[in-house]
Amino acid sequence: MSEIIATYLVHDSKHNPEKKAEEIALGLTVGSWTHLQELEQNQLRKHKGRVVSIEGVDVDSTDTVSLIKIAYPTINFSPDLPAILTTVFGKLSLDGKIKLIDLEFGEELKSHFPGPRFGIQGIREKLGVFNRPLLMSIFKGIIGRDLPYLLTQLKEQALGGIDLVKDDEILFENELTPFEKRISEGKKVLNEAYEFNGHKTMYAVNLTGKTFELKDKARRASELGADLLLFNVFSYGLDVLQELREDDEIALPIMAHPAFSGAIAASQDYGVSYSLLLGKLLRYAGADLSLFPSPYGSVALEKESALSISQALTAQDQFKTCFPVPSAGIHPGLVPLLVRDFGNDSVINAGGGVHGHPDGAKGGGVAFRQAIDISLKGLPLRENAQSLPELKKAIDLWGCTEVVK
Amino acid sequence: MSEIIATYLVHDSKHNPEKKAEEIALGLTVGSWTHLQELEQNQLRKHKGRVVSIEGVDVDSTDTVSLIKIAYPTINFSPDLPAILTTVFGKLSLDGKIKLIDLEFGEELKSHFPGPRFGIQGIREKLGVFNRPLLMSIFKGIIGRDLPYLLTQLKEQALGGIDLVKDDEILFENELTPFEKRISEGKKVLNEAYEFNGHKTMYAVNLTGKTFELKDKARRASELGADLLLFNVFSYGLDVLQELREDDEIALPIMAHPAFSGAIAASQDYGVSYSLLLGKLLRYAGADLSLFPSPYGSVALEKESALSISQALTAQDQFKTCFPVPSAGIHPGLVPLLVRDFGNDSVINAGGGVHGHPDGAKGGGVAFRQAIDISLKGLPLRENAQSLPELKKAIDLWGCTEVVK
Repeated sequence: MSEIIATYLVHDSKHNPEKKAEEIALGLTVGSWTHLQELEQNQLRKHKGRVVSIEGVDVDSTDTVSLIKIAYPTINFSPDLPAILTTVFGKLSLDGKIKLIDLEFGEELKSHFPGPRFGIQGIREKLGVFNRPLLMSIFKGIIGRDLPYLLTQLKEQALGGIDLVKDDEILFENELTPFEKRISEGKKVLNEAYEFNGHKTMYAVNLTGKTFELKDKARRASELGADLLLFNVFSYGLDVLQELREDDEIALPIMAHPAFSGAIAASQDYGVSYSLLLGKLLRYAGADLSLFPSPYGSVALEKESALSISQALTAQDQFKTCFPVPSAGIHPGLVPLLVRDFGNDSVINAGGGVHGHPDGAKGGGVAFRQAIDISLKGLPLRENAQSLPELKKAIDLWGCTEVVK
Repeated sequence: MSEIIATYLVHDSKHNPEKKAEEIALGLTVGSWTHLQELEQNQLRKHKGRVVSIEGVDVDSTDTVSLIKIAYPTINFSPDLPAILTTVFGKLSLDGKIKLIDLEFGEELKSHFPGPRFGIQGIREKLGVFNRPLLMSIFKGIIGRDLPYLLTQLKEQALGGIDLVKDDEILFENELTPFEKRISEGKKVLNEAYEFNGHKTMYAVNLTGKTFELKDKARRASELGADLLLFNVFSYGLDVLQELREDDEIALPIMAHPAFSGAIAASQDYGVSYSLLLGKLLRYAGADLSLFPSPYGSVALEKESALSISQALTAQDQFKTCFPVPSAGIHPGLVPLLVRDFGNDSVINAGGGVHGHPDGAKGGGVAFRQAIDISLKGLPLRENAQSLPELKKAIDLWGCTEVVK
């Protein structure tokens, strides 16, 4: 029987997790069991939820805290994320102190999900970069600015050797820098930079607007030669991401932005875990890159959470892997840490750490690329920066964290 | 200048809410301000966020807790909920202990939202019921059952004088009780019941499936003569609800189910307040009825939260009002409390309290209708139930809470 297994962290004030688990397994499937006649039990058996395990975590005066695993037969729901979320965490999300930690999809259920269209390998092939973490940067202070301003920033970043440039996620359709113009004019600028230095830069344009217009807009982006879509998945819905991914007329890589995801994942006791939300579900639904707060910056995730997202994006599975993009508060001096914690198959993403460089965005990009090269060789950063003026300036400004081997 | 004003509950460990507020107002709009030249300031002024107020709530050793109001110029975003949520609580949702409490839409911005198509008055007109709370019930244990089983339940509920019957929110597309059959066969049963007793019952059918197929499916429901759509808004997205509401070829009332909303609203410190999520935003986006946990049952909201939802659904505004449907754990003996707390313009919604009645769903419906009549007259329930066998049996089984005047 095909199932999906949900793991919950449950605070039970009645100190009876066995009863709570049984209530979940029945309440979210057939409703009741022991009062049914044998004939009905035989009819409903394949629809009945099942308590897989109950593992004690903690007991205090108010609550017994447990990890409860419940298996739900997939026959009960259609194989889409809204149906899955409604089944495993619909009414239950309102039922006291409970957090959805993980979902294990059965093989048959997985066949209904696409995973990334390109994934880490596909993005690397587009860029022709295989042996180092990618480098990404973000436009800064673009709201209220015109297209020449945006294009100047784009050019500077490309000339700095940056692989991916993303729109600010709060840049929406507007008269100064309209979506289609950003794509077509941005393309020209990036082509010029490529002619100049032979480095390829991809531009992630923010796909926004009304839900039912997104597919047409994304298809238009594809026609105009867009490299990549940025998408605020959690302001729309995970299934919208999936349908954008599945549309062969779009067929562009998708970068998932975590905007609004903190509303669902930030609490220790409620909502959905970061590793499930920004890791497994984004990957299954088809994101090629997933942004999340790094453990180092001002907007920071706990290191364990950030690593668990990265792991879910790249773990062994039938789907392509999705690029982890730990973000926020990143400067060149943190590259040794990023490489140690997130490895080669990750994207190093900076805003202020690129634009705030004394030599501007171009210098910032160069400094990051220098830091990446040194870190990959396992060499200490500060010592090896002395002959590299861009990196030296960055370290003088922001400092540097060496990794002790 | 048109604005949207967001109210946040902020825990600030740096004990400097003024600085935090300024960072939000700039960080989510123009990025920086004091370093800009006068010319740039003049250009960007209309895009700049504004700190409206900071109100102290509490100070403890770790945090200063404040209510911070920030105004965002509407020129910065397109007038849709994904853009609004990304602007006011995108990256910010990930930035420490912060909860979005309210959003005040400017008049111009409101003009881009539809509100309920029918609302309380429109639903009342469809039913021909004007002077009492409506009575609703839920199918029980329908997963794995066939259409005759479902139709028998529907008939019993209709014969009990129930106004609205809703699908279980975890009933998805399935071979035993397919969507279109539920509508067309359900309609026949309800017409028969109406012929028999002259009471009109509306059936809310669960609209499920892939996001981009929902409009076609809802239009088909409309063609088949569906009364009402049930929709798991938060497993999809608020904007999906809005676009279903705005489609004139659908033009059916929509009942919003709170499935998954607890993942966003249940924490005291993170996410979005219940009154904003299940109240104002559902109403603005166009729900005609909003279900939420009552303060009385086993799956319970705090009374203050439940009342705040109800208030947001019915407060003075340019939009039609939306029916509050406090749910879960409701039996006839709670009707005096429900009438006192949620008033005449609410829906009394029961599952077990209808189906678990000693005389079955029909008897359960009758008992509720009796309890409503007595409560509206302001009479004590138990005393007046003596000559009403259905209500008496319900009170004997579940008890009764009188309201002391």
